[in-house]
Amino acid sequence: MLEKVDLTKSLSKEEYKEVFEPLQWRLNELQRKARSAGIPTIVVFEGWDAAGKGTLINRLASGLDPRGFKVHPISAPNEDERYHPYLWRFWTKLPAKGTMAIFDRSWYGRVLVERVDELTPEEDWRRAYEEIIEFERQLADEGAVIVKFWLHISKKEQKKRFKKLEKNSYLKWKVGKEEWRHHKQYKKYLLAVEEMLEHTSTAFAPWTVIEATNRRWARVKMTETIIDALEEALRRPAPAEPKKAESPEGERVSERKTLLEHIDLSKSMEKDEYSKRLDHLQEDIFQLEHEIYIRRIPVIIAYEGWDAGGKGGNIKRLTNGLDPRGYEVIPIAAPTTEEKAHHYLWRFWKHIPKAGHIVIFDRTWYGRLLVERVEGFCTEAEWQRAYREINEFERQLVSFGCVLVKFWLHISKEEQLRRFEEREKVEHKKWKITKEDWRNREKWDRYKGAVVDMLQRTSTTYAPWTIVEGNCKYYARVKALETVVEAMKNALEGKGA
Amino acid sequence: MLEKVDLTKSLSKEEYKEVFEPLQWRLNELQRKARSAGIPTIVVFEGWDAAGKGTLINRLASGLDPRGFKVHPISAPNEDERYHPYLWRFWTKLPAKGTMAIFDRSWYGRVLVERVDELTPEEDWRRAYEEIIEFERQLADEGAVIVKFWLHISKKEQKKRFKKLEKNSYLKWKVGKEEWRHHKQYKKYLLAVEEMLEHTSTAFAPWTVIEATNRRWARVKMTETIIDALEEALRRPAPAEPKKAESPEGERVSERKTLLEHIDLSKSMEKDEYSKRLDHLQEDIFQLEHEIYIRRIPVIIAYEGWDAGGKGGNIKRLTNGLDPRGYEVIPIAAPTTEEKAHHYLWRFWKHIPKAGHIVIFDRTWYGRLLVERVEGFCTEAEWQRAYREINEFERQLVSFGCVLVKFWLHISKEEQLRRFEEREKVEHKKWKITKEDWRNREKWDRYKGAVVDMLQRTSTTYAPWTIVEGNCKYYARVKALETVVEAMKNALEGKGA
Repeated sequence: MLEKVDLTKSLSKEEYKEVFEPLQWRLNELQRKARSAGIPTIVVFEGWDAAGKGTLINRLASGLDPRGFKVHPISAPNEDERYHPYLWRFWTKLPAKGTMAIFDRSWYGRVLVERVDELTPEEDWRRAYEEIIEFERQLADEGAVIVKFWLHISKKEQKKRFKKLEKNSYLKWKVGKEEWRHHKQYKKYLLAVEEMLEHTSTAFAPWTVIEATNRRWARVKMTETIIDALEEALRRPAPAEPKKAESPEGERVSERKTLLEHIDLSKSMEKDEYSKRLDHLQEDIFQLEHEIYIRRIPVIIAYEGWDAGGKGGNIKRLTNGLDPRGYEVIPIAAPTTEEKAHHYLWRFWKHIPKAGHIVIFDRTWYGRLLVERVEGFCTEAEWQRAYREINEFERQLVSFGCVLVKFWLHISKEEQLRRFEEREKVEHKKWKITKEDWRNREKWDRYKGAVVDMLQRTSTTYAPWTIVEGNCKYYARVKALETVVEAMKNALEGKGA
Repeated sequence: MLEKVDLTKSLSKEEYKEVFEPLQWRLNELQRKARSAGIPTIVVFEGWDAAGKGTLINRLASGLDPRGFKVHPISAPNEDERYHPYLWRFWTKLPAKGTMAIFDRSWYGRVLVERVDELTPEEDWRRAYEEIIEFERQLADEGAVIVKFWLHISKKEQKKRFKKLEKNSYLKWKVGKEEWRHHKQYKKYLLAVEEMLEHTSTAFAPWTVIEATNRRWARVKMTETIIDALEEALRRPAPAEPKKAESPEGERVSERKTLLEHIDLSKSMEKDEYSKRLDHLQEDIFQLEHEIYIRRIPVIIAYEGWDAGGKGGNIKRLTNGLDPRGYEVIPIAAPTTEEKAHHYLWRFWKHIPKAGHIVIFDRTWYGRLLVERVEGFCTEAEWQRAYREINEFERQLVSFGCVLVKFWLHISKEEQLRRFEEREKVEHKKWKITKEDWRNREKWDRYKGAVVDMLQRTSTTYAPWTIVEGNCKYYARVKALETVVEAMKNALEGKGA
């Protein structure tokens, strides 16, 4: 593929002068339109050393409104980044809707320099391919424009440029041993680049090879490519507004009721046994928290369940056993302005624990498949797509070594009523109940359909759901805590998924 | 002061059992009330090694709703933190309204261990005192509750505890050479602690010394102290709602008009000269950007000015000369939900550049004294206070070594009209003008009063305003760029403020 690239392509100064300025104006205009349309744009620059990435990025930036973009120079991950899943540092740098992120090197580092220099085991960079494709598809599906450039020069041209740089006292720091070593391995790299281009050139995030021998040519091609991508995105019909769901889910419930109906809600536990077991489990988990810290294992505990299902009390019994310096509870409510301006998984990526720490989500990314689906806060296409996206998200966490425990706190409709009424009667519980809880209760059946779908389609071998029989709070608390203790022990013994 | 502390204070198990549980319930209730009232709570734990900070924090956490607080263990600053002003890492960890942040060690490190171990020069820790008091006052003024604990034990008690820890194979890692060295210097530390308690016990953020010999006593005193602080905060009258200002500022304008009226708006520059000088300046700044990166000097450029004053174009000419990997432009619009839940300076602290980088603010923290004042988005007490807060904020930046340049882009009312009309006429400029711009224009005189106050009261020796005569865009761009180049050169030559 790269063999066939015509590296003699060039533009004369005159040709360049004529075409470039109008292109820059056009790009500037499109940047504004993309802002109005709320389209996030991601531009990735990869290429050979001395191929001219820096000056090309400068040129791109100089044509843009400086308030609408950010350049991210990517080098080797720092400690904080190494303690998070591979894509975390890119997720947290994604552009908000209407803005542009320019990556000077990118998530492809893992399949290029880290691969060729054998800095990561084969398993890691092979997995990186999958994760990269998932990552880009997820972003494109939510409307992001992704443009990826490979700046190509020949080995000979690279050598010429290195020599020239070395003669310039101000720039010679750019060429060191590392660069010459890479230069000598040009062929080896070339194979890795070829494979990368083949594996990751997708319809939603294609690579563009830029013949970079002639800088004027490179500038024009870069600008034209971004213009084309933005124009295409702006031609797309605006995404459908979600419609408030008119109970279309109601009918499906009956067919699918089996799963939830089979749950034995009579399971219970006496107070004495509860107290005893809780004490033991809390001692265990305190010890385990220390060990996962030493071993640098990240832990994510995700709580979902019916309103009044006992999430709060359950989380409290779990955290009472933990050293508060090692965990954090993240309550998930309606997204903020900033969160709405990003991919819906962005706000969860932000909170992924550093290796060795525990994060407990009180409600989770499953909101997409529950409240957002049932209340019509997202389109059907969006929640349908979310099953896959969530499974991918969780696999990425688990592949990184996360312990991931997911709870569905289940109670019967009658038990919920009993708890609602109690909350209204008892003074110090009143704050827990709102009109919205009663409104949600009316939609119990619709929610039930969504819950069944969710449990079936997102129970994976690597991230299974634990359904917690919740009518008896004592039983539920012990079961949840036991499940967490078990999962942490397994991880420490290397029996993880 | 600490000599007089009665370290024999204790509670028997029976006494403790009786009092502690009701206190925990009360605290839990107050946490909920503070959430409803939107009060942020900050609890600081400092104290001798082995005084029991860890277990005390555990006990506090176990009584709280885990969704409402976060514990921040503070150790030596990492690289990223060292490249920012001292208080930056605490600002970014501040609790949102209604939540609690618990600091396990804190910003007092600089006047304790860093001081006594001579890790920072005297100048630094002396300045730290001022900055800490400013920091706490600013937070308290916006309604934060600040509780600070010093956990006190005698030298003898510390020795006893160290010996006991050393015998425990699971805990002996807690006592190393460092701890014994500190122990031997108990007296030296004691003097530093005394001074700290004296200097920083303020009405808005008092220290509480906890006699920590007896753990039960310590728990009860800690809990009671937090309860008292929250109760007092909840008794305070709710902060006044800002009233939409009914032009009370109008009258003051005439007296103060001199400053703005003296600006010579006839200053201008021909296109030829402009192009030539711009080219030179852009070359200079590219070089300077590189040098401040090497020397790790942070640069902040703050743009304020009339609507249509030319901020956008001015920033563009500045950034066109810069390598985009070294700078970022932060456009400031209405605050997001998350930003509103924090101190108004929080969102600017977040964007303070890492040493060696440049951040350009397109509108700034001066919004408090301009739009928020004039439109009545904050109370008079709030904007009156802001003069001092902003001066303190800027002094902290400059003390850290920041280059700070502040521009007021000034144009005449007639010139603004001309530009507004042009924008409405010219197709590709239409997007720049909105109804709000016209509405703001009607309030020109009120804004003028606010601008004059701002320029007079926040022009300091360390952070002076540069008024840019803006009727001629060419002149304005060259002047701004020249000012930045000059400031960067001065900093590199050590002639900074």
